[in-house]
Amino acid sequence: MNASLSKEDKGITVSKKDDFSEWYTQVVLKAKLADYAPVKGLIVLRPDGYSIWESLRTTFDKKFANNGIRNGFLPILIPESLLGKEQKHFAGFNPEVFWVTHSGTNEIGDRLALRPTSETLAYTMYAKWIQSWRDLPLKINFWNTALRAEIKGTKPFLRTSEFLWQEGHTVHATQKEAEEEVMKILEIYKKTVEEELAIPVTTGKKSEKEKFVGAVYTTTMESIMPDGKALQMGTSHFLGQNFSKPFEVKFADKDNVEHFAWQTSWGVSWRLIGAMIMIHGDDQGLVLPPKIAPIQVVIIPIYKNGEDKDKVLPKVEEIKKTLESKDVRVHVDDRSELSPGYKFNDWELKGVPIRLEIGPKDIEKQSVVLAKRYNREKSNLEFTEIEKMPTILDEIQSDMLKIAKEQGKANSIDISDYTEFKSKIEKGGFFNAPWCGKLECEEKIKEETGADIRVIPFNSENTNEKCMYCHEQSVSVPIFARGY
Amino acid sequence: MNASLSKEDKGITVSKKDDFSEWYTQVVLKAKLADYAPVKGLIVLRPDGYSIWESLRTTFDKKFANNGIRNGFLPILIPESLLGKEQKHFAGFNPEVFWVTHSGTNEIGDRLALRPTSETLAYTMYAKWIQSWRDLPLKINFWNTALRAEIKGTKPFLRTSEFLWQEGHTVHATQKEAEEEVMKILEIYKKTVEEELAIPVTTGKKSEKEKFVGAVYTTTMESIMPDGKALQMGTSHFLGQNFSKPFEVKFADKDNVEHFAWQTSWGVSWRLIGAMIMIHGDDQGLVLPPKIAPIQVVIIPIYKNGEDKDKVLPKVEEIKKTLESKDVRVHVDDRSELSPGYKFNDWELKGVPIRLEIGPKDIEKQSVVLAKRYNREKSNLEFTEIEKMPTILDEIQSDMLKIAKEQGKANSIDISDYTEFKSKIEKGGFFNAPWCGKLECEEKIKEETGADIRVIPFNSENTNEKCMYCHEQSVSVPIFARGY
Repeated sequence: MNASLSKEDKGITVSKKDDFSEWYTQVVLKAKLADYAPVKGLIVLRPDGYSIWESLRTTFDKKFANNGIRNGFLPILIPESLLGKEQKHFAGFNPEVFWVTHSGTNEIGDRLALRPTSETLAYTMYAKWIQSWRDLPLKINFWNTALRAEIKGTKPFLRTSEFLWQEGHTVHATQKEAEEEVMKILEIYKKTVEEELAIPVTTGKKSEKEKFVGAVYTTTMESIMPDGKALQMGTSHFLGQNFSKPFEVKFADKDNVEHFAWQTSWGVSWRLIGAMIMIHGDDQGLVLPPKIAPIQVVIIPIYKNGEDKDKVLPKVEEIKKTLESKDVRVHVDDRSELSPGYKFNDWELKGVPIRLEIGPKDIEKQSVVLAKRYNREKSNLEFTEIEKMPTILDEIQSDMLKIAKEQGKANSIDISDYTEFKSKIEKGGFFNAPWCGKLECEEKIKEETGADIRVIPFNSENTNEKCMYCHEQSVSVPIFARGY
Repeated sequence: MNASLSKEDKGITVSKKDDFSEWYTQVVLKAKLADYAPVKGLIVLRPDGYSIWESLRTTFDKKFANNGIRNGFLPILIPESLLGKEQKHFAGFNPEVFWVTHSGTNEIGDRLALRPTSETLAYTMYAKWIQSWRDLPLKINFWNTALRAEIKGTKPFLRTSEFLWQEGHTVHATQKEAEEEVMKILEIYKKTVEEELAIPVTTGKKSEKEKFVGAVYTTTMESIMPDGKALQMGTSHFLGQNFSKPFEVKFADKDNVEHFAWQTSWGVSWRLIGAMIMIHGDDQGLVLPPKIAPIQVVIIPIYKNGEDKDKVLPKVEEIKKTLESKDVRVHVDDRSELSPGYKFNDWELKGVPIRLEIGPKDIEKQSVVLAKRYNREKSNLEFTEIEKMPTILDEIQSDMLKIAKEQGKANSIDISDYTEFKSKIEKGGFFNAPWCGKLECEEKIKEETGADIRVIPFNSENTNEKCMYCHEQSVSVPIFARGY
């Protein structure tokens, strides 16, 4: 044993099945993704955690740019007077706002809020920037953090008082164009989460009760976690003219008549990383989808003496170069004094998609041992096939999505009987249940079972069923679930 | 005239020479780089401003990565008790700290500071993460904002209460390695600023009086602005064990004996953008060095009728594709209803390095008109030479640096007579003046002339001169100047 084998380095001590919550926290901390900050409710991202966020940011930035969206910067401080300009919006965030009251020893007159979200600030600026139809559409995205004081217990990535996110804010000349933007963004979100993180999502609308405060309507993507709880993965809001009117976001049209503009806002946060950990992780720790893994392939050279070392290391170097030439993110673990077994566990804990083991015998056989993290299968890979690695990584990526889809389907239940619903909700899951559309039923169900309407999937409108709760004519079949 | 020709779109109305301060503000606002936020002292970055920051970030990230530095995330809130752990450090920042005292309606016990800088928070975490020599060096960089309440007037990019920056924090096993890191970073800073922003810098050490609070010593890079004032462009600090001791950043060495670690911290901010505007801008507006310009080449098609349009546009499209294939960032200004003259002014204001004008006569001559923004020279470029554009851009980039160096040299004066110094300091400039090394003389000079020691250039130690102020033996020849 040596000094680096401290407590922190030991593997996960509970199973995902037995204690999901403790398992999750251990994976986050032990895979060195994040750690708790000194202030309750706040976390720090370590490089392995932050690089996943960077990878997502790069992907989104490309897709946003292709859609004509550019990035900007907004300060974190919003005057109280401004935040209150759209009353409903303000009331929604008020209980969780952090307030700055002093700078140095000076008291500040109009208290300053740490941004819970930036609609009010962005639209104050937009009102100055937009004069005519020529200035539209205006589409700006902001990568920053939002602050909302969490009263409940903290969970890294899932519930923290400050979180990394992006918030996009667009302005359009017509309602139609704004509504199309809402859907384009939701589609970008869905594709990215499915393709990069290998997590299936269900898209649709939020109910009136669950929509963003200030929006006309909110579209959302929701996923089901292995513990049967739902996680909101991202939202895209149609704001209509709810903000453009109080903030006077107006434009002169070609006929020189002034109109209030139509707006959208939308965001995803580091919650996506939390979902990825929950969906793919196992009792050995993190399992990273290849596309967002900081290291995709780790090579472990195995040798016991100098002679073997001289045989193994040149080959390792050669394989590394081949992989790099194929744009594979590869790392050689050449730490001395650590056993191969220790290294295997270490990289499994960290979720690296592929491990290559190579010792003197492998050199003789002209092959390496290839271990896949996600299904823990081992096989031999001929040296001549090393360059097929990108294909192997792609296969892993799509298989992970396939497995996640199957898991999601297994946890998804069509239901119409409320008694049955109440007995089954305890075990968790997504329940597709007909609903009359009334707030009263929605509230009663929440009160009696703890389940929300997570999403009303697109094309789930129907006229032939009866509301699970009141048995009146249903208007849609939302997904009910308990949420994070 | 049409609606988009609002006040904001008009050109710069003062000359750089006559009213530098007003000129600067007009360039920032009218080139749409930034705008004032509703809170005094805070600014918003518009996409054209933010993309310059993104470009710098990308360049630094590559260089940091090559140096083994990875990125992480730290929350913005630091408890008062933690901030005060290194007393001198705290005292330095205390007057400008923003304090959070409430979340919702709840009063917070231990007040929370908005980060003025993150040493105290980072090192609290580092102390948990570092156990043995195996964990070193630990090198993490954080792209975020810092908040320091500005009492004096605000200048976008130069003096704001919240600013974008990066702060790097490294931990090493030995003093030597930490000191080498300090210099490596300073070198990365210098190269990047000179190569990307075409701004020459002078590197060296800060005096004891001017060093970072908490550092053993501070290295800095300073530049002289066209108004004769000095601007600090970035600093790299050797922290010694000043923080590792109070924060207990310790490691067990190979012999299992515990040692306090050696640390560095370093940062550059969006001030660099401010410097670039000041150094290169002119009476027509912004002048962007090609390397960081979001658009490097703008093409203006010129035609008066449909026939000409049909001749011009296909060629424009062809040129655009050729340029894109050479990785040139190109934009075609195809806005109808705006005159070529209006467009010329618009893109000059925005500082785009090269403008190509192409009309029916150019098509006949098989060439385009090429206008360089930085020296406003026009010439003809044969169609066959379009693909030389990367070379032309490189030449502009190096010529801009050359011109900036000459300007800097012209504003730099060797001086040893204090009376002469006092008469000349009014006009501004960098003054290389021998100094005895005593705080007393430094303070007297500051009091009597407003000039600081900006930097003690490397290799400026000397023994043959007399202190400009007290005439005692000098120890170095610092640069004295009034600063931003």
